[in-house]
Amino acid sequence: MTAPIETDAVVVGAGPAGLFSVFQLGLANIRCHVIDAQPAAGGQCTAFYAEKPIFDIPGFTRITGQELTQRLVEQVKPFAPQWHFGSRVINVALQDDGRLLVRTDGEASLLARVVVLAAGAGALVQKPGGPGISASPIPAQDWGIAMQDGGAVVDMVRFVTSQPGIFAVGDGCSYAGKLAYIASAFHEAAMMAQAAFLLCHGSGLEDARRSGVQYTSTSSNLQRRLGVQ
Amino acid sequence: MTAPIETDAVVVGAGPAGLFSVFQLGLANIRCHVIDAQPAAGGQCTAFYAEKPIFDIPGFTRITGQELTQRLVEQVKPFAPQWHFGSRVINVALQDDGRLLVRTDGEASLLARVVVLAAGAGALVQKPGGPGISASPIPAQDWGIAMQDGGAVVDMVRFVTSQPGIFAVGDGCSYAGKLAYIASAFHEAAMMAQAAFLLCHGSGLEDARRSGVQYTSTSSNLQRRLGVQ
Repeated sequence: MTAPIETDAVVVGAGPAGLFSVFQLGLANIRCHVIDAQPAAGGQCTAFYAEKPIFDIPGFTRITGQELTQRLVEQVKPFAPQWHFGSRVINVALQDDGRLLVRTDGEASLLARVVVLAAGAGALVQKPGGPGISASPIPAQDWGIAMQDGGAVVDMVRFVTSQPGIFAVGDGCSYAGKLAYIASAFHEAAMMAQAAFLLCHGSGLEDARRSGVQYTSTSSNLQRRLGVQ
Repeated sequence: MTAPIETDAVVVGAGPAGLFSVFQLGLANIRCHVIDAQPAAGGQCTAFYAEKPIFDIPGFTRITGQELTQRLVEQVKPFAPQWHFGSRVINVALQDDGRLLVRTDGEASLLARVVVLAAGAGALVQKPGGPGISASPIPAQDWGIAMQDGGAVVDMVRFVTSQPGIFAVGDGCSYAGKLAYIASAFHEAAMMAQAAFLLCHGSGLEDARRSGVQYTSTSSNLQRRLGVQ
């Protein structure tokens, strides 16, 4: 076994929830590797409705899953995430130093402080006979993650699962009133990134808020990370 | 005093949070009137940074407040909201039949089952010397609405305030971990609309979920409301 790649965060799933997680983590100065069982980004958006228009993405009267994916991939480019397509996560194990060892069915294994499950409904539990994406289920329950309604139970502030350091956002997370909306996944990613900042940079949440919640329209710090001229 | 206009919902504030509330309410088959003290839609987006790019709206590597506003105004058109610009809300009072009477400083008064405060931070409480928007504060506290950190306290599932029928979304609502992000306001609007559906259409929340949470990419019902051919 080759030595694991050390990074800040591993995002599992490259659909809208995973991509916007990479973006929000990037703003919080957290480097990401992204693992997805499919050969390219998009998740359900491209697997199920690549050419089918969606009408409820804020700011778009209509947009295809394919175009939304392309736009989100473009948006994360300043943060240069490392992609691992065609890979499945086999196991996530807490190490003595508090980091998480993520093993895949490919060559890569990764060592990170934060793991974000953004793999979509049906990906986290085996659903025999379910559509496309459930052909590559993530055995989250086997990793000790509490599940409910087919999603990982998270608190609504930090979006952390029952396992410290493992977060969940998007259709694969579960909380009171959870809507399987892409717009909700974007909010969940933003909230998660605040808590991930605390784990990765060690400062308290309030400090994280002060330093982490800046606005891209005014912060030269964030604009530098985004490569804005 | 002229007789009040009867409608389903009154949205106070025509910034991104208010506009996307109109959209989500429209999908739930709830007709809206929109009140804003400014002469046009946009809220803080156009008042404070009309030409300044924002970099963290999902799907846009950069977008001005002006362009985001125009896109959201376009997105609500199928639902034909009635606009009341240059108007301030003076009072919201619960009526014997459970509806809310909204009085403005203009000619219009409105009678609705749902009121959504989407008026932005600083709009809900008087902040002497604050910038622009606080020159037209909404005396929410006088209406018996519990406030915290300059926002109306809401629960994180329904986004209802301490006053039944009065909801709050966007920068002017307050809950654990609240981020003053536009992306969060979009999620809050979607959650609020589920609860508003219950109030307006009388069915239980689970029924509302079944009938209300459909996907615009697949539901002919929603596509008809949107005017999709």
